[in-house]
Amino acid sequence: MGIITLTSDFGLGPFVGLMKGVILGISPQVRLVDLSHQVPAQDIRAGALVLEQAMGVFPPGTIHLGVVDPGVGTKRHPICVESKREFYVGPDNGLFTPMLLADPQARIRILENQALFRRPVSNTFHGRDIFAPIAAHLSLGLDPGQLGPVLESPMLLDWPTAHEKDNLLHGVVMAADSFGNLATNLIRGQVESFLAGKTALITLAKLEIEGISPTYGQAGAGRNLALFNSQNRLELALKGGDLCRKLGYEPGQAFGLEVTIQRR
Amino acid sequence: MGIITLTSDFGLGPFVGLMKGVILGISPQVRLVDLSHQVPAQDIRAGALVLEQAMGVFPPGTIHLGVVDPGVGTKRHPICVESKREFYVGPDNGLFTPMLLADPQARIRILENQALFRRPVSNTFHGRDIFAPIAAHLSLGLDPGQLGPVLESPMLLDWPTAHEKDNLLHGVVMAADSFGNLATNLIRGQVESFLAGKTALITLAKLEIEGISPTYGQAGAGRNLALFNSQNRLELALKGGDLCRKLGYEPGQAFGLEVTIQRR
Amino acid sequence: MGIITLTSDFGLGPFVGLMKGVILGISPQVRLVDLSHQVPAQDIRAGALVLEQAMGVFPPGTIHLGVVDPGVGTKRHPICVESKREFYVGPDNGLFTPMLLADPQARIRILENQALFRRPVSNTFHGRDIFAPIAAHLSLGLDPGQLGPVLESPMLLDWPTAHEKDNLLHGVVMAADSFGNLATNLIRGQVESFLAGKTALITLAKLEIEGISPTYGQAGAGRNLALFNSQNRLELALKGGDLCRKLGYEPGQAFGLEVTIQRR
Repeated sequence: MGIITLTSDFGLGPFVGLMKGVILGISPQVRLVDLSHQVPAQDIRAGALVLEQAMGVFPPGTIHLGVVDPGVGTKRHPICVESKREFYVGPDNGLFTPMLLADPQARIRILENQALFRRPVSNTFHGRDIFAPIAAHLSLGLDPGQLGPVLESPMLLDWPTAHEKDNLLHGVVMAADSFGNLATNLIRGQVESFLAGKTALITLAKLEIEGISPTYGQAGAGRNLALFNSQNRLELALKGGDLCRKLGYEPGQAFGLEVTIQRR
Repeated sequence: MGIITLTSDFGLGPFVGLMKGVILGISPQVRLVDLSHQVPAQDIRAGALVLEQAMGVFPPGTIHLGVVDPGVGTKRHPICVESKREFYVGPDNGLFTPMLLADPQARIRILENQALFRRPVSNTFHGRDIFAPIAAHLSLGLDPGQLGPVLESPMLLDWPTAHEKDNLLHGVVMAADSFGNLATNLIRGQVESFLAGKTALITLAKLEIEGISPTYGQAGAGRNLALFNSQNRLELALKGGDLCRKLGYEPGQAFGLEVTIQRR
Repeated sequence: MGIITLTSDFGLGPFVGLMKGVILGISPQVRLVDLSHQVPAQDIRAGALVLEQAMGVFPPGTIHLGVVDPGVGTKRHPICVESKREFYVGPDNGLFTPMLLADPQARIRILENQALFRRPVSNTFHGRDIFAPIAAHLSLGLDPGQLGPVLESPMLLDWPTAHEKDNLLHGVVMAADSFGNLATNLIRGQVESFLAGKTALITLAKLEIEGISPTYGQAGAGRNLALFNSQNRLELALKGGDLCRKLGYEPGQAFGLEVTIQRR
């Protein structure tokens, strides 16, 4: 039957339901799953981080519809990314950066076949008028070659990777989740290879955390801890609390905070 | 299989899921789509504006369940509206005003056939006990004639329309969306006909906006702009910001703010 | 096809969607219904109150997935509860207390059959890696005997029941809903039997309410009222307002507020 996931900055109003109405009018049997519609308004990077979490979790052939689209109605291209395993449909504005970095062979097509759009196409809601119907047609097995010409150079966001320098492993916070836990760009393999069996001393702003815990449950309430999260990213947390707000940040401000690891 | 949409002021608690449980017990194959459950508590007009946006977007035969129902358990009638294209199930309190104005031939029935209800019927949750099972039975193809007698005069809300006076086109803000954009009751055809090719000077409170932009993307950040939204309504927005809050209003307070257009 | 409901403290981020992706990979036809993901973070009692409301509302055989799991990754058991009518899958931390009290014959199994898990199992997201796949396999008709050994003594929360003392009926507030209405542990049958036809005088903090209304609609705006809600619990409300906040409490703080009833 196919699965379409939906990610946007539309919040809890009716826009998401309208996209689903258009999809079900074309593909009545498709399964619809919301990833998140709480992407901060027009925050393309936050949308990319949501979509990145779904890589490999849904069955092969899943179509991910992503609409964080401050340039809607301008000349930015509407695109479809066909990776080894999944499809991504949305604007060419960097929203699919992590998937494009993970699969450099992914084929990108510009959505130019207007016969597949909902008509008339508004200038303000391509989610309903372009992306939703394209995703619906793909779920029915449409050959992506029908969508339009190949795009060679998609927009990519700056996507920081961790690096070693002066005997320190340097990373940054990528995002805060709804509990205030801070996920970094420090991946388990890289961290364990850097530590080589020694204990980590992790620094974030004025905070120091010694050691990496196997779980949330083991730390006492009110203690800061570090652990590898469900994506194998190093995550910093405050047991029973909200570390992001305790540090004085709104969740949207956490990106880019420096995190360093020393060996002890 | 049929589609049922759900709209309410129930927020994010379990009430919506309970209605879905009742529906799936009767109609296991029906597709369920949430429009919005963030209608401000007991704000019938805001609920009507959500439902209005779905008109014509879902496939014919879709059943729209609407529960914004401050009078639950009193003598207000539970009703089903059968328009040319879609069904609406909910209380007779004005919630379906725009659909009734759009289709004066719509047939309204009072829900009196208690054999179709969930028993016992509570006094406080007709969404679960009356509206959900009725919508489920309709999705299975129940003849609406089985629901109960015809209602001749449904409740209608005051639903302002724009008008021309003293060389000005007068409208009002109907609602703020989750981005703080303000949708008005000024429809594209009426505005363009009034302007007759001249430039618009739009006034809202102390704000003046000159010209109507084709898209959000073209304005610079921090600029106020006007454009026709995905419903062909004139919408006022603050590029990259929240115009509603910038004007000092909570989203629920935006209804009725006067908007006037001059020709320049 | 089977139904799986989902309840968690994951909020509006992508974690819920990821669980659904895992479920649909195993059981492509199952119906998925969200109960609530707004359980306050790590508040097991609040999660139990959400799940309690669904008892008996969904069709027999429904599988309720509950993930409010501060001990994820520690030695607390992952379990499946098989009651007379429904299944519950989640951590053994008291989350299923009301269902276990309602059906003392329910059979509880420890989830030990790792062949059914998503591999590798993370230490931080058993919802995705253990509970979601187990629920999916149950929806396909898996014999619960395949899950693991029986657990004799599950964790139970303190779950207060109302009692009579000194000619007063004593209860407590169990939770506030999204309207600020306060649901108590005073059940209709017990209250009516206590009153024996006399009028109730209900006391909550400094608030006194005389009589129990049949509906919300009958009281004037701004009046406090008591009524039996859709679960036959005595509920205290402020007509057209938010009683919980008016009393000075956040919704999460309402549990345990004393409510007493006198006969008049």
